[in-house]
Amino acid sequence: MAGNIIGRMFKVLSFGESHGKCIGVVIDGCPAGLELSEEDIQKELDLRRPGTSRITTSRMEEDRVEILSGVFNGYTTGAPICMIIWNKDIRSEDYESIRFTPRPSHADYFAYVKYGGYNDYRGGGRFSGRITAGFVMAGAVAKKLLKKILNVEVIAYALEIGGEKAEDFTLDDARRYRYENDVRAPTPEAAVKMKEKIQQAIFRGDTVGGVIECIVTGLPIGLGEPVFDALDSDLAKAIFSIPAVKGIEFGAGFKAARMFGSEHNDPFIVEGGKIKLEKNDAGGVVGGISTGAPLHFRVVVKPPSSIGLKQKTIDLKTGKQTEIIVGGRHDPCIVPRAVPVVEAMTAIVLADHGIRYGVIPPVIRNL
Amino acid sequence: MAGNIIGRMFKVLSFGESHGKCIGVVIDGCPAGLELSEEDIQKELDLRRPGTSRITTSRMEEDRVEILSGVFNGYTTGAPICMIIWNKDIRSEDYESIRFTPRPSHADYFAYVKYGGYNDYRGGGRFSGRITAGFVMAGAVAKKLLKKILNVEVIAYALEIGGEKAEDFTLDDARRYRYENDVRAPTPEAAVKMKEKIQQAIFRGDTVGGVIECIVTGLPIGLGEPVFDALDSDLAKAIFSIPAVKGIEFGAGFKAARMFGSEHNDPFIVEGGKIKLEKNDAGGVVGGISTGAPLHFRVVVKPPSSIGLKQKTIDLKTGKQTEIIVGGRHDPCIVPRAVPVVEAMTAIVLADHGIRYGVIPPVIRNL
Amino acid sequence: MAGNIIGRMFKVLSFGESHGKCIGVVIDGCPAGLELSEEDIQKELDLRRPGTSRITTSRMEEDRVEILSGVFNGYTTGAPICMIIWNKDIRSEDYESIRFTPRPSHADYFAYVKYGGYNDYRGGGRFSGRITAGFVMAGAVAKKLLKKILNVEVIAYALEIGGEKAEDFTLDDARRYRYENDVRAPTPEAAVKMKEKIQQAIFRGDTVGGVIECIVTGLPIGLGEPVFDALDSDLAKAIFSIPAVKGIEFGAGFKAARMFGSEHNDPFIVEGGKIKLEKNDAGGVVGGISTGAPLHFRVVVKPPSSIGLKQKTIDLKTGKQTEIIVGGRHDPCIVPRAVPVVEAMTAIVLADHGIRYGVIPPVIRNL
Amino acid sequence: MAGNIIGRMFKVLSFGESHGKCIGVVIDGCPAGLELSEEDIQKELDLRRPGTSRITTSRMEEDRVEILSGVFNGYTTGAPICMIIWNKDIRSEDYESIRFTPRPSHADYFAYVKYGGYNDYRGGGRFSGRITAGFVMAGAVAKKLLKKILNVEVIAYALEIGGEKAEDFTLDDARRYRYENDVRAPTPEAAVKMKEKIQQAIFRGDTVGGVIECIVTGLPIGLGEPVFDALDSDLAKAIFSIPAVKGIEFGAGFKAARMFGSEHNDPFIVEGGKIKLEKNDAGGVVGGISTGAPLHFRVVVKPPSSIGLKQKTIDLKTGKQTEIIVGGRHDPCIVPRAVPVVEAMTAIVLADHGIRYGVIPPVIRNL
Repeated sequence: MAGNIIGRMFKVLSFGESHGKCIGVVIDGCPAGLELSEEDIQKELDLRRPGTSRITTSRMEEDRVEILSGVFNGYTTGAPICMIIWNKDIRSEDYESIRFTPRPSHADYFAYVKYGGYNDYRGGGRFSGRITAGFVMAGAVAKKLLKKILNVEVIAYALEIGGEKAEDFTLDDARRYRYENDVRAPTPEAAVKMKEKIQQAIFRGDTVGGVIECIVTGLPIGLGEPVFDALDSDLAKAIFSIPAVKGIEFGAGFKAARMFGSEHNDPFIVEGGKIKLEKNDAGGVVGGISTGAPLHFRVVVKPPSSIGLKQKTIDLKTGKQTEIIVGGRHDPCIVPRAVPVVEAMTAIVLADHGIRYGVIPPVIRNL
Repeated sequence: MAGNIIGRMFKVLSFGESHGKCIGVVIDGCPAGLELSEEDIQKELDLRRPGTSRITTSRMEEDRVEILSGVFNGYTTGAPICMIIWNKDIRSEDYESIRFTPRPSHADYFAYVKYGGYNDYRGGGRFSGRITAGFVMAGAVAKKLLKKILNVEVIAYALEIGGEKAEDFTLDDARRYRYENDVRAPTPEAAVKMKEKIQQAIFRGDTVGGVIECIVTGLPIGLGEPVFDALDSDLAKAIFSIPAVKGIEFGAGFKAARMFGSEHNDPFIVEGGKIKLEKNDAGGVVGGISTGAPLHFRVVVKPPSSIGLKQKTIDLKTGKQTEIIVGGRHDPCIVPRAVPVVEAMTAIVLADHGIRYGVIPPVIRNL
Repeated sequence: MAGNIIGRMFKVLSFGESHGKCIGVVIDGCPAGLELSEEDIQKELDLRRPGTSRITTSRMEEDRVEILSGVFNGYTTGAPICMIIWNKDIRSEDYESIRFTPRPSHADYFAYVKYGGYNDYRGGGRFSGRITAGFVMAGAVAKKLLKKILNVEVIAYALEIGGEKAEDFTLDDARRYRYENDVRAPTPEAAVKMKEKIQQAIFRGDTVGGVIECIVTGLPIGLGEPVFDALDSDLAKAIFSIPAVKGIEFGAGFKAARMFGSEHNDPFIVEGGKIKLEKNDAGGVVGGISTGAPLHFRVVVKPPSSIGLKQKTIDLKTGKQTEIIVGGRHDPCIVPRAVPVVEAMTAIVLADHGIRYGVIPPVIRNL
Repeated sequence: MAGNIIGRMFKVLSFGESHGKCIGVVIDGCPAGLELSEEDIQKELDLRRPGTSRITTSRMEEDRVEILSGVFNGYTTGAPICMIIWNKDIRSEDYESIRFTPRPSHADYFAYVKYGGYNDYRGGGRFSGRITAGFVMAGAVAKKLLKKILNVEVIAYALEIGGEKAEDFTLDDARRYRYENDVRAPTPEAAVKMKEKIQQAIFRGDTVGGVIECIVTGLPIGLGEPVFDALDSDLAKAIFSIPAVKGIEFGAGFKAARMFGSEHNDPFIVEGGKIKLEKNDAGGVVGGISTGAPLHFRVVVKPPSSIGLKQKTIDLKTGKQTEIIVGGRHDPCIVPRAVPVVEAMTAIVLADHGIRYGVIPPVIRNL
């Protein structure tokens, strides 16, 4: 129990259920003096909804963030910032059916056992991807803080979907295109191909997974508090909070298993009088500390568990084998929606470590 | 700062430096009433030293654990357990040289910047692999607790070294053979091949990486406290505290990116009147909660940074480009020594979550 | 920063401002399976309002609690419980005046300096007594949990107001009468006298302080986790979170300074075959652990800072000496309203320690 | 369980037992770059021993601190600082007797129940006053840090012992005389009288209590993180960790119960162009934040429980009433030894809050 708070100095508490009254989040520890409006949050929140990269007014009414506390006269006050979105249009679907015939690879059954049957099972309750809307709201604040104080930028994108991998692109491409297409690909070409894979899955009544890549620029040397609160440790922890994530790797990642030390090592060079790394196979973190090179990691996202095909399950009432076809409208691929969530969780961890390391002050004075 | 404590209820604090007086660890939160001796700890500690799987008396004098507190009359008391090993035979090597010509892909330079030059750089200081001896000491307690209360067993082994992968083996093979060979392979055959790869690397003056696999049996459903203190989140955080780890994946892991949902999903089946999972592509954790199936994850370990070949670096005194050949005796492959450390960190996280979930009591009464 | 969360396993986060949108609280770590309704919370919340001991329907519309999450089908789910009351009738008073002429012994000026002028100063913002409505909401849940699982009862009352001290009463008197009178006195007679003192203060344009006594029955031996998370330590911390509290003492308290050990010691006796304490000068806690005797402590509450008399202050704009008469309607004595808050904070700490010590389970099964 | 760590950013972990191998402490979060030697620690540690205010070489061998980690080349490194004193001359007293006939008002019996009989009962184990030697070691570091960075000074002294109260003295008197006399009184005259009271108690085979006053100068406005991590909250928590403490009050303290608001309020005045408080009845903290005025609180210390007189207790083996006379040499008054401990715990809390508020940096650069 009591596992819904992350961070040491920039603390984020998640609350709310998929089919409850609202999805919410509270930040305790945001520095005072950061300019912040609901629009700042909304902008990020809108990116989490697929098909809305070009934000249209018609959709703007949905999932409107409301800041309940911690902001006054347009600036953060240093007090806890509570933000919520109200749940609307909750259809009174018959969730009783899934309650006793748990969906394979969903948390339904395990949560049922863990919480003694008291968990809110409607729409997955706390295990719904919808919970990540709260992550994005908190992440929006973290991102703004990082940008303002350290000029840090967090950029994630779909590197691969359904086996289709983006290639030959620059960070600038990713920065420019990822929110211009529905699948969050770093190039328009990759977007087309990935979309095709998703459509094929839809046609099959099936789902596909993929890989998200995240790059962070502008970090100073020194973030991360080894040995246990290492930067990669805390990032990994945060990223695994995102439903459907099954792995993470930094820099060369799993490829490092087949590299020699002489290949993997990143030599120091002097460039324009400054000390730099010749390459970045470490992914921007060595010994748990940021190296000044871009932070660089990849995250694997499994194919969504809600498929339109018949699956084996059990009937909890009788204890006997049965079958299930998961109804309702579900995402055929969660990667696009997870992209801004990866950015959010990354920003939350970096803000926390920025404050811990003293490079982000408790109060932003003399704006 | 202040990042050397892990866990919420079974807290582990690491202290000590590679060339300081000692390597130590304190556990705050170990239940009272667990039978515990220095031999219990020593047994695990000895596994961390390569070439000592068949423990010989002659080596037993080295790295002797000393329990300083928290154990009385052969049982834990509920008070903090402090354990140390004294550092001996510290050669007065000239570490001044590496101080100002940092070794590529070591933490030397980044720690120098982060700690304002005050860090103990001798032998890597806090960034030395030797620190993990403390992890193993704490892990030994966690393992004993898990075994005693839940009959949980934690088994890690070298799945792959230098590109050589173990194949066709069972969990029983791994349990039996991993500590019978120097490389911690799950089969004698794999051990031979992996050792060969390491020897080739030594011959080149180079180093190799690999993959460690970890399997945990006996876990009940329900460990893990989503959304942020999910079981996989906390395991990932803990595992990344081990130097040289660059990635982690659960179950199908990165392969999930190219699977359909219908492939990846683990159907529920009834077997002997009990609800089970037909397969375990989730790796024993769904929605951040243990599923009752074996916990199953893989960790990539990079090739050690200390190679015997010439590398580019910088001279911190002049700010100019220079070269370095890292001297001293270093591990050509860290995988074998990291195997018991992976087990230890896994056990620490599981003990913490066992207490949090109430399946491990604060006091073990009526032994 | 980041100081708005209390508790280790039963975590309470406070948010909201006096003149913001709402006052709120989130509990992370409440066991699943506790029957809970908004009425349970409302009942406690109503006690915080003076003059409402006999709850009338007409007042019930004010300060209505709304549970936003964590409760489903009438039971807690194990997920975070967010509760708020909306702020209504916020008069657009000219708080600009107090912004730059800080009220003596209010937090106005110190918060202004600490938060760089960004704090919400309206009505005291986060430093308003109104914040404690959130404490009471969380405390209501803790109280219900303690009652249900341990049959623990928390009883606080006004022991002394304006120098008028209640005398010759039993715990039963306090239980029965404290919420029957406006000042929360343990007897009707004391209530009359205390009320008189308050009216005298009102007449003078002044305010008065007092002492609250708190007694907790039903606690088992063993709550409290020394040395730092001792039961008295955590209670003291929690109680000092209540605005206007300036001291706390357990059992004989400050009188112990003038007692001999032979007087202060509580002998063990056997009564009906059970081990008991002959008296309770320790106040129910020894060595930081509950003794099984009633927990017993007293809290001093200073006279409210908002007085109707002229006071010296400074003009922050000019830096010059000036005077202020604090306007608006303020409490002439905060003791009565603080009584349920003391109960709430006490219950929160006890619930947290009950979970930590394993006597309150993470899930309440088989209700 | 798991209650032996205090602090958020300057974390202090206590370990060791009265009659175990050692008493120890680890600080996680001390900034790098603080000049620190064993002598710095020893100096404070020596003050905890009665009769040693004029430190003599002959005594220097006893209770020698040993720094095991975290200090290198005379400066803190940013790594955890482990410090211990070895327990010597542990007489093999028959503690079995007290094991089953618990001493009244000692933790013996309550710890026995709480820890299932596994606690180290020798000499009180974790409940011995000797544990506070660890607090003093950590406090010595905190004090040095506060002095170095903020020029903060922490001064505690015996205000009252056995009913004998020090009067007519200045802070300078206290600073000068408190460690010049055995009872830690602020004046030589008070010392004589207090000592007399203690001798009278010894003569009776009894013990006496007293009051410690603590004043901290040099604090800036703004330390303390309301609402829960208020400065007074965290100080109170820390002070109650000291055995025998039964109460704490700030500024006017319990007297505030009988004051009018017009008396208690501290007006703002301008003095030499600076904003000050005319008096300090708040004790240096308002709304949980330091006010810039000296921090000022008093702590009541009960008479030691170990008296030489016959007391009622129970025989745990038979469950029957019996009697006990506590043998061995015990302190007739704990106040003098608690004085440096109060200073230590105060400094620890202030260091923690200094780092949290950003006025103490994570690295002390350019000494």
